[in-house]
Amino acid sequence: MSEAVPPLTPGPLLATIERPADVRALPVERLPQLCDELRAHIIDIVSVHGGHFGASLGVVELTVALHWAYDTPDDQLVWDVGHQAYGHKILTGRRDAFPTNRTYGGVSGFPKRSESEYDTFGVGHASTSISAALGMAKARDLKRTDQRVVAVIGDGSMTGGLAFEGLNNAGAAHTDLLVVLNDNRISIDPNVGALHEYLAGLSASGGWNALKGGVWSALDELKGMGGGTLQRLASRLEDGVKAVLTPGMLFEAFGFRYIGPTDGHDVVTLARRLKELRGLSGPILLHTLTVKGKGFAPAEADQVKWHAQSSPFDKVTGKSLAVPTAAGTKPPKWQDVFGDALVELAELDERVVGITAAMPSGTSLGTMMEAMPDRAFDVGIAEMHAVVFAAGLATQGMRPFCAIYSTFLQRAYDGVVHDVALQHLPVVFCMDRAGVVGADGPTHHGTLDVPIMRAVQGMVVAAPLDEQDLRDLMFTALGHDDGPFAIRYPRGAATGMALRDGFEALPIGKGRRVADGDDVAIVTYGAIGTYVPEVRERLAARGVSAAHYDLRFAKPIDGALLTEVFGRFRRVVTVEDGVREGGAGSAVLEWAADAGALDGVEVVRLGLPDRFVEHGTQRQLHDEVGIGPDGIERAALALVGAEAEAA
Amino acid sequence: MSEAVPPLTPGPLLATIERPADVRALPVERLPQLCDELRAHIIDIVSVHGGHFGASLGVVELTVALHWAYDTPDDQLVWDVGHQAYGHKILTGRRDAFPTNRTYGGVSGFPKRSESEYDTFGVGHASTSISAALGMAKARDLKRTDQRVVAVIGDGSMTGGLAFEGLNNAGAAHTDLLVVLNDNRISIDPNVGALHEYLAGLSASGGWNALKGGVWSALDELKGMGGGTLQRLASRLEDGVKAVLTPGMLFEAFGFRYIGPTDGHDVVTLARRLKELRGLSGPILLHTLTVKGKGFAPAEADQVKWHAQSSPFDKVTGKSLAVPTAAGTKPPKWQDVFGDALVELAELDERVVGITAAMPSGTSLGTMMEAMPDRAFDVGIAEMHAVVFAAGLATQGMRPFCAIYSTFLQRAYDGVVHDVALQHLPVVFCMDRAGVVGADGPTHHGTLDVPIMRAVQGMVVAAPLDEQDLRDLMFTALGHDDGPFAIRYPRGAATGMALRDGFEALPIGKGRRVADGDDVAIVTYGAIGTYVPEVRERLAARGVSAAHYDLRFAKPIDGALLTEVFGRFRRVVTVEDGVREGGAGSAVLEWAADAGALDGVEVVRLGLPDRFVEHGTQRQLHDEVGIGPDGIERAALALVGAEAEAA
Repeated sequence: MSEAVPPLTPGPLLATIERPADVRALPVERLPQLCDELRAHIIDIVSVHGGHFGASLGVVELTVALHWAYDTPDDQLVWDVGHQAYGHKILTGRRDAFPTNRTYGGVSGFPKRSESEYDTFGVGHASTSISAALGMAKARDLKRTDQRVVAVIGDGSMTGGLAFEGLNNAGAAHTDLLVVLNDNRISIDPNVGALHEYLAGLSASGGWNALKGGVWSALDELKGMGGGTLQRLASRLEDGVKAVLTPGMLFEAFGFRYIGPTDGHDVVTLARRLKELRGLSGPILLHTLTVKGKGFAPAEADQVKWHAQSSPFDKVTGKSLAVPTAAGTKPPKWQDVFGDALVELAELDERVVGITAAMPSGTSLGTMMEAMPDRAFDVGIAEMHAVVFAAGLATQGMRPFCAIYSTFLQRAYDGVVHDVALQHLPVVFCMDRAGVVGADGPTHHGTLDVPIMRAVQGMVVAAPLDEQDLRDLMFTALGHDDGPFAIRYPRGAATGMALRDGFEALPIGKGRRVADGDDVAIVTYGAIGTYVPEVRERLAARGVSAAHYDLRFAKPIDGALLTEVFGRFRRVVTVEDGVREGGAGSAVLEWAADAGALDGVEVVRLGLPDRFVEHGTQRQLHDEVGIGPDGIERAALALVGAEAEAA
Repeated sequence: MSEAVPPLTPGPLLATIERPADVRALPVERLPQLCDELRAHIIDIVSVHGGHFGASLGVVELTVALHWAYDTPDDQLVWDVGHQAYGHKILTGRRDAFPTNRTYGGVSGFPKRSESEYDTFGVGHASTSISAALGMAKARDLKRTDQRVVAVIGDGSMTGGLAFEGLNNAGAAHTDLLVVLNDNRISIDPNVGALHEYLAGLSASGGWNALKGGVWSALDELKGMGGGTLQRLASRLEDGVKAVLTPGMLFEAFGFRYIGPTDGHDVVTLARRLKELRGLSGPILLHTLTVKGKGFAPAEADQVKWHAQSSPFDKVTGKSLAVPTAAGTKPPKWQDVFGDALVELAELDERVVGITAAMPSGTSLGTMMEAMPDRAFDVGIAEMHAVVFAAGLATQGMRPFCAIYSTFLQRAYDGVVHDVALQHLPVVFCMDRAGVVGADGPTHHGTLDVPIMRAVQGMVVAAPLDEQDLRDLMFTALGHDDGPFAIRYPRGAATGMALRDGFEALPIGKGRRVADGDDVAIVTYGAIGTYVPEVRERLAARGVSAAHYDLRFAKPIDGALLTEVFGRFRRVVTVEDGVREGGAGSAVLEWAADAGALDGVEVVRLGLPDRFVEHGTQRQLHDEVGIGPDGIERAALALVGAEAEAA
């Protein structure tokens, strides 16, 4: 850490806030100072430790106002996604622990029930808050208690179908519920879709409330003029005009009472208004306008870049304070290898189109969106739509590549099965962030894709060992006409290997022997296999000769390769960065059972345990669960040693 | 078949229709006759052969009008869900084959790409049509071809979040697309939610279009009156009134041009209007009002009952013509065992609530909705909301039982993982229709739940062998405080066994030996195990003694039981009604590998193959894939025989 690190002391008022009750003890006039200090403290901490940033700065006033107006934790406050909850965490007893945010063993970057009673609902994925809050409200009604329930949802999360399912049910549920729509016109990337344009229209009009008054008084005037014709005209108009006087007509259509738009940075007005709303009944939607990154000029100016920061920066200028890495080539990110390869493939084949669900920067589909905007689609936080849309494109001969994080593809699983696989449509699923992802933690780890994709009838399920493989697998997928093809690859840096020009088709369902050996076979699936050269060296130093096999395909699995493995080795270690239940190791077992090759073998399957793995660096987590170099070495030694003793 | 079966000859005009081009060759005045004959023919066929019914009767006019106005199959017509596509099938070359509807080897009950070029997109699950149609429209734009794309979606399907994701993207996509909203105020059960109420309001107003004209002319009159004040008033009003003049404000907010509501049974007007719409550009929503079951009085009168019919009926009175079954007790349906048990549990424990996603009759949650309406929720076709709503309820100490078909739970998989399991919330997933379901076919078979639920960290995964087990597993789940609990059970009749009063808690993760034997162990998971007594008898007759073990839990799996199995038997057959990849059989293999018990065993895993299984009776399908009695017997004999030869 550089000497320039600023002290992380909170401001004098913030220093007195141990819990939200302390906020509520303040007169409303002091809230602006608290907001200033909270904002400064968030900037201080993130400028040193990194983390999500823009979203929390945008809701500083909303956070303070909510805790001031509502009786948390008895009142239930549900944050959507949770990127914006840093201020909430700092106000709810985690101020001093907050510098550990997102580090191994530290505070989670998202609201988390096990961390605090103020975190009423764990989040990470988008669009859940209205449904969860409605559940809480209904439970209250059944239990006849009186806590209030508030969901805070961004306009980005509002593009997810689940948010609409929530609205549709809440609006008809005859229960008390406040939904705060935090409208900052952006999610991680700029928002898309008709709803976005609709909200922009609402905000631009600004004077809806003024207009409302104006129209009513105009009607009154008309009526006052008397005379049969005018009176009749006025009545006819009045009926017609009624609906438009509710500017949030979309939300009114869903049965919500719409209030807004209101300035989300005027904490005094906001706090007072929330206090009023706390006393009202029925489903209410409060539309607040905020600025992502508010109060930190560089973040306001480039909201995409400042969604999150991983390295230290100057808290005034925003200039990076990261120690420059040694000159020379840095390994590319996996996502960029994907993004660049997709553009190349699209240049080769005009059928290729790209789809992302609100993650142009996260998946690097943004590269294609810039290079060929007509052929790359950002559909918003709507993974299921992304997949069914891809299916529609594929029926017309297009070749969609859906770039969706492994964990988010869970949202679209039915589309993968019912709309793509069942119709044998050639959609390619590029599952970024497969395996543990690091600091984002359990909501974002991609742990389940191998078993759930492997179960799908006719699905090709592949994982590259290195970035050359990823390029070639994408090319192979494009050449696969009969049904879908799934490719998983991790977050972070690839190997940095030299890459061939162009592409090479790989035989589907064929793995390879990477390195030979005598005593034990290490069979890996995907990029986790890049640990094996180090493991083989360590084992060799202890006199153990290990072969390394790379499955490359979990389905179809390479029977010829496994015939070699089980023919030559009695001890087999499988390694994957995913759950063990039904994973690639199980695929190996299934093959062995079907082939009658179980006799006399020992198979140790390494993978993620049957519990949710927390946050930390990827390497910390690999080591924790035993799929890092140490774990693989241990497993191989145990297998060999166990037999050595028996012999 | 009884002698009373009416002839299935189509009417004289329908008899001339081999393909939609023949419809288009008709003058519009002849369409009413075609509709009458088509409706009569559907009633004829369904009255003899059964099938979905009400939905297809409701869209007879819409179907004829669409094929008359649009140039199918070049124009792409996408049906949502597909219950309503019988008329479409009859008009598109499948008139004579249609009596085989839903039978083994016959016509599918749903649109299916492999069946006809007129079936542009396979369906079965709801809410996919707008997204798929948007994909087709975008492909057309990229390929610069000129076919038109039409999605037909019911108001029930519109409650699914995916439909909103589709609307949100289509409205902003600047492409030509017609969405026909077929508003019949019902899905399988009556619709729920705010959207339903909103649409009812639109429909009731009826004269929106008249109002529109009226308001405009009123404004014109005002302006014509001259005079500064009136003129200014008129202008102010005009701005305000603009929005309300688009009565489908909800859809206009999404960027669609709204037209309607229009009478969906006036085929001449509908056909002419569709022909006009075919020439218009941009995203358009046509709102048609139809009556489910139209033209068949009993079906109009009881729309839930007449959604589908499985047995022959009198085509005038609707009276059942099914041969009465022998006196005595009929085995209960699995779903009714669930529905009754849930009411009993809710009476015992006030924390119990029930949730269904638009399937009160299909899941028998309707029993609880009648008995205790406050504690049973129908959330509409919104499975993901159902699960996150359940999670919200569970955070407040409630005990939600989500009754969702196995295949539809795929829609909510991320909720199961991210919202329930990750937070260790005690939500019980009652997965009805697990395994092959019969006539509904591959869109509805519940084939994947075992691997996908088993992969979820900390999930308890169970399946009853019989209905006593189902009751006791539900009770056991209620007693399980730490995390979710999934129970799968099939469609159709349970065993008819005598049931104990009350409930008994079962040890979690414990199976049982059902019957002993010497030569081979048959290890089953779930109700498929009810075939085994017959298999054991057959094997005994051939001198083979088979033991029967019932796993009951696929996770946690019963290590003690499997220690017995693998200790006593070298030959093990596992049987499940689900895919083999990662299923219960794989769980057995995983245990054996982890326990070092692979040596010297042969394990044959029976289950569904790695292809989509078509429709037919459950028994036909079990036999086809080798998990019926014949298949289990064959597998056991092969294992024993193989060794006998080797010995």
